[in-house]
Amino acid sequence: MKIDARIYVADALGEGAEIRLDEREAHHLRDVRRLQKGDGAAVFNGRDGEWSATIVDLGKRGARLSVGERRRDPAAEPDLWLIFAPIKRARIDSLVEKATELGVAVLQPVETQHTAVDRVNLDRLRLIATEAAEQCERLTVPEVRPPLAFDRLLAGWPAPRHLVLCAEAGPATPIAEALLAHRGDAGPWAAMTGPEGGFARSELDALGKLPFVIPVGLGPRILRADTAVLAALACWQAVLGDGRRRPPHRPSA
Amino acid sequence: MKIDARIYVADALGEGAEIRLDEREAHHLRDVRRLQKGDGAAVFNGRDGEWSATIVDLGKRGARLSVGERRRDPAAEPDLWLIFAPIKRARIDSLVEKATELGVAVLQPVETQHTAVDRVNLDRLRLIATEAAEQCERLTVPEVRPPLAFDRLLAGWPAPRHLVLCAEAGPATPIAEALLAHRGDAGPWAAMTGPEGGFARSELDALGKLPFVIPVGLGPRILRADTAVLAALACWQAVLGDGRRRPPHRPSA
Repeated sequence: MKIDARIYVADALGEGAEIRLDEREAHHLRDVRRLQKGDGAAVFNGRDGEWSATIVDLGKRGARLSVGERRRDPAAEPDLWLIFAPIKRARIDSLVEKATELGVAVLQPVETQHTAVDRVNLDRLRLIATEAAEQCERLTVPEVRPPLAFDRLLAGWPAPRHLVLCAEAGPATPIAEALLAHRGDAGPWAAMTGPEGGFARSELDALGKLPFVIPVGLGPRILRADTAVLAALACWQAVLGDGRRRPPHRPSA
Repeated sequence: MKIDARIYVADALGEGAEIRLDEREAHHLRDVRRLQKGDGAAVFNGRDGEWSATIVDLGKRGARLSVGERRRDPAAEPDLWLIFAPIKRARIDSLVEKATELGVAVLQPVETQHTAVDRVNLDRLRLIATEAAEQCERLTVPEVRPPLAFDRLLAGWPAPRHLVLCAEAGPATPIAEALLAHRGDAGPWAAMTGPEGGFARSELDALGKLPFVIPVGLGPRILRADTAVLAALACWQAVLGDGRRRPPHRPSA
């Protein structure tokens, strides 16, 4: 069966299941992705793996897909959270897209003292994360959580989870060395970067006292917040994550 | 002296030197960066390190800076080229910015069979690279070279230079393993990714036969071309580049 699109759906998947999409989703398939009745799709819901499906109806009010056979077994991404201070629109969109491609499980915005952006459009970020997951062959969509204040985030931190802190100032271990020292430790992890203005002194002091925080250096250049995030995530996946795995085989188009 | 901006200049730098900027550069300082006569700057030219300077004249027709003392000694970036197939505008701009932050020495566009973008605005990319270098505390600006056809690039390849090839299909070594196997090999390197459509079969066959090519895997997700570039550069700097160095100390603002 020819696969014309990968589509994230909410419903349970299984052979013979029928998936119903609402007006908004149908509009997206029809007018953005240029799909039509009869097209083949690969569908996933974050729980049941990936299944083939056929678009049996695609109208203005909604769409229906008929599910065929399973194409891939369920698989979770590594247990890696990204904690990030919101940045301005084009950059936050790109950050969410790329963090999704780089396999984060959770995107957690955090409000710090120097955070310049005070409204985060969670719906937009969730849409971007969903589209990036569809595009990059993930079987899950990262969870985009509502923003948390810095103090509350740390007060409620689930303690065994390591926190890789991208630190431009102060003592830090070079990231390769820090991650290689934890090889084999696939336990829960998170990576965190500050806002464009950096962390406040009091925030850095608070972070420095926490036993789960691992301050890492990313070299001699001052990276923008979004670049630092991507660098840290890429290194983490390469050393501790699923960097040894390969993409699922696809017949070339 | 208070430093209000970092500015890349072409002229030679030395104590007491006078730097002249043309109309376009003066406009940029005045109307984009909001600088004025009397402001302090840190200037660099890619050769002489970084020097303090004072803006002694800033008008519509040009600007003059008076150079003070040396702030940082000259230092080159690691000898890492990025070979990339041009992608559409917003993404190529972001790629050039982030590759500059991640310390590449040379940006080399390459025309492959599936490259969808056939015009590259080198002036715009050079401006983006310059601004990113100013922002990230680099002492050099990466060289943005004119595009080369795939076959010509490989035919003229300077052979001792390793080429890390981001490969979604075919045999590849996980990137961490591939780079760790070359630890201590600071010799010349390059990283390469294909266009959004991937490399053509014949291109992959040609690359597979070249002794300097090291195909690496970046995990199970299909990364966009720009994401793959950033992931490979970040891992390279962390393992083989200057990831152990720290940013120059700056008194906090």
